Amino acid sequence: MPAAVLSIGTELTRGELVNSNASWLAEELTTLGFDVKEHLTIADDEAIIAEELVRLGERAAVVVCTGGLGPTSDDVTSAAVARAAGVPLERDESALAHLERLYASKGREMLDRNAKQADFPQGATVLPNSEGTAPGFEVAVGKARCFFLPGVPGEMRAMFHESVRPAVGALAARDTHQIHIRCFGLPESGVAELLADVESAHEGITLGYRAHFPEIEVKVHARAGSAPEAEAKAAAVAELVRDRLGEAVFGERDDSFAAVVGERLRAKKLTLAVGESCTGGMIGSMITDIPGSSDYLLLDAVTYANSAKTQILGVEQDVLRAYGAVSAECVGAMAEGARRLADSDVAVATTGIAGPGGGSDLKPVGTVWLGLARRDQPTLMYRHQLSGDRDRVRKRTAYIALDLVRRVAEGWDLSKGPSFSTCEEILGL
Amino acid sequence: MPAAVLSIGTELTRGELVNSNASWLAEELTTLGFDVKEHLTIADDEAIIAEELVRLGERAAVVVCTGGLGPTSDDVTSAAVARAAGVPLERDESALAHLERLYASKGREMLDRNAKQADFPQGATVLPNSEGTAPGFEVAVGKARCFFLPGVPGEMRAMFHESVRPAVGALAARDTHQIHIRCFGLPESGVAELLADVESAHEGITLGYRAHFPEIEVKVHARAGSAPEAEAKAAAVAELVRDRLGEAVFGERDDSFAAVVGERLRAKKLTLAVGESCTGGMIGSMITDIPGSSDYLLLDAVTYANSAKTQILGVEQDVLRAYGAVSAECVGAMAEGARRLADSDVAVATTGIAGPGGGSDLKPVGTVWLGLARRDQPTLMYRHQLSGDRDRVRKRTAYIALDLVRRVAEGWDLSKGPSFSTCEEILGL
Repeated sequence: MPAAVLSIGTELTRGELVNSNASWLAEELTTLGFDVKEHLTIADDEAIIAEELVRLGERAAVVVCTGGLGPTSDDVTSAAVARAAGVPLERDESALAHLERLYASKGREMLDRNAKQADFPQGATVLPNSEGTAPGFEVAVGKARCFFLPGVPGEMRAMFHESVRPAVGALAARDTHQIHIRCFGLPESGVAELLADVESAHEGITLGYRAHFPEIEVKVHARAGSAPEAEAKAAAVAELVRDRLGEAVFGERDDSFAAVVGERLRAKKLTLAVGESCTGGMIGSMITDIPGSSDYLLLDAVTYANSAKTQILGVEQDVLRAYGAVSAECVGAMAEGARRLADSDVAVATTGIAGPGGGSDLKPVGTVWLGLARRDQPTLMYRHQLSGDRDRVRKRTAYIALDLVRRVAEGWDLSKGPSFSTCEEILGL
Repeated sequence: MPAAVLSIGTELTRGELVNSNASWLAEELTTLGFDVKEHLTIADDEAIIAEELVRLGERAAVVVCTGGLGPTSDDVTSAAVARAAGVPLERDESALAHLERLYASKGREMLDRNAKQADFPQGATVLPNSEGTAPGFEVAVGKARCFFLPGVPGEMRAMFHESVRPAVGALAARDTHQIHIRCFGLPESGVAELLADVESAHEGITLGYRAHFPEIEVKVHARAGSAPEAEAKAAAVAELVRDRLGEAVFGERDDSFAAVVGERLRAKKLTLAVGESCTGGMIGSMITDIPGSSDYLLLDAVTYANSAKTQILGVEQDVLRAYGAVSAECVGAMAEGARRLADSDVAVATTGIAGPGGGSDLKPVGTVWLGLARRDQPTLMYRHQLSGDRDRVRKRTAYIALDLVRRVAEGWDLSKGPSFSTCEEILGL
């Protein structure tokens, strides 16, 4: 079934906002089994909106539109839809009463212009807004069922789930299923290579790749004669994908890497300390982004200055003088110092040259040392040579550090792993 | 002059990627003075691309397209353009030679399918790609000059700056100018209220607002009879906007808050230490995101566990027992401990309840204490009551901490400021 996404707003056509609504809606519609033909973004212009709606009404079975439902004079979507559908606008008394109650409950006066939000094209079905003021509506234009939702992402998403999905579910070819698999540590080309033959060997399977640097998400999209068939097919291929990608796979759709690592620490009752130099707090920030992380994270010492490395983590000045801050000796001492200070089971430390300055022939930009200290076990030091700008070097370093912690918690081999394609040296094994 | 943005790619129509290229291009074209009528996103489908190009060629003077220039069989943009323009594809020998050199220099074999990237519609002007392999091209379709760029953002942006902007600059109504002003600490509604009368009092001025939580960017867009006139008008209104928003304004278009704060510290030769609890490394991460931040940041102690607050920052166990970790007493001791440990000029500390759990009647989720310690001056403690989810509470807290450092570096009043709308208590003044 063909579908289209229409985004309305001059702030969008001018590029003042990134249109994340369109991709979100397209993904939801694709997952439901629709074939999304186009996303169109146009300004708050009554004539243009009406004209494009008529065009889309001839091409798509479902059109989902966002924006232009607010109370200001810029908001002309309802009027444009009435024009496209060839009907007048009518005030909906129950929507008006709802708006009045809403304003009263917030102790705010309802202005005349707000009443405009209760005007809908004749014959429209009003869609309630559980997250905000502006109701949405559904109306037929040409051959299409057209849904009009607010532009505010939270309100739009809630209304899609509550009203649009139930209404169009039956229209869609309900024979698709999607599974998202998240991984870290393999380059995108490496992931594609490992999975190169999967599509051709499995009819009705499409693989999609989405990079959220440095993570990669693999989407297994299955089409089949029925929903249970599609689900079974997706599950079987997802199993194969997980097998092929091995330890690089850390979770499903909404899993974050830090949450998965934290879950493993919690399960094994392990506590963690961190010593950061080049990542500058990024590792701590990722870990503490997860509610309840105080169960395992005891301390993160961001020792950016050499004096802090010495005073806080006990890195000897002789080590810094002889080997420099970006060295196996320093990072090992940082990890041991962090572990000792917090009396944790595990500690990781980072030091490196994130750039753009600070590189040398011996230690070019992208040279990073990671240290891993464990209670009663030898300390390990890893040298990686990373590419990309400052932000990429820092982010990938933070991920490698978490990957090392994950390997410890899982009891996996510490001399290899998915993130080791950039590893050039390991000491202390 | 009317312009349009066309994005090509099935990964986009399916919603697998957020289309950030379209908003970037739209903003660039708007700034050049074009009136961007629409952004259209369609799949890698030769017939549809050709049809839509013909339609856009009737409506716009300039069409900028991205995507579908790669070597795989999915990439059909060149063939579609040839169809729309009614010309055959032709291999460009110099582009081919360039591709061959490129592959040779990387030590990679050039496959037959890669040669496809040297095929262009007859009469096209080839646009060099300074960042990658696929060249772009320009061709006329209908009344429009159409530019075809790669979908990879870095390559697309470089090609736009190097080839498209110089080519279309003269076409645009060169009578607009835009100035971006970044601020922190005022709610969006407060910013809009302070600037409510500016548009009506200044003909040819449009104000745009863009929230990058918790920052707000105000865009002053000026139109006038000539470019210098537009520039002067924008500058005058920008001055007025800065005046109205006062201390909340911290920079221009590409300035980051942490860079601006760091610049002030560097200028005043002040060093900084940080003690973080609820922000968990976010402050350190923001500061060290800036190259050269080791000049002023000495230490960031992320003391997530109470034991770490005691051991590292010297917060007395009695304080934690009597007042809890989220208290003026604790945050003051954290700030003083961080300052003493690093022997820095200034230190800030954070502790709070970021949620979703951990709140109580006395200290609900969103309760945050910030501490500010200075050499030889009294320590100050600020209680803020913040709204929003965990991520928002953490991010706003990190910004308030940096704002306090900025106020110290600027020598501003520490008892008020733009971020103080959420401040409920100040101790130690």
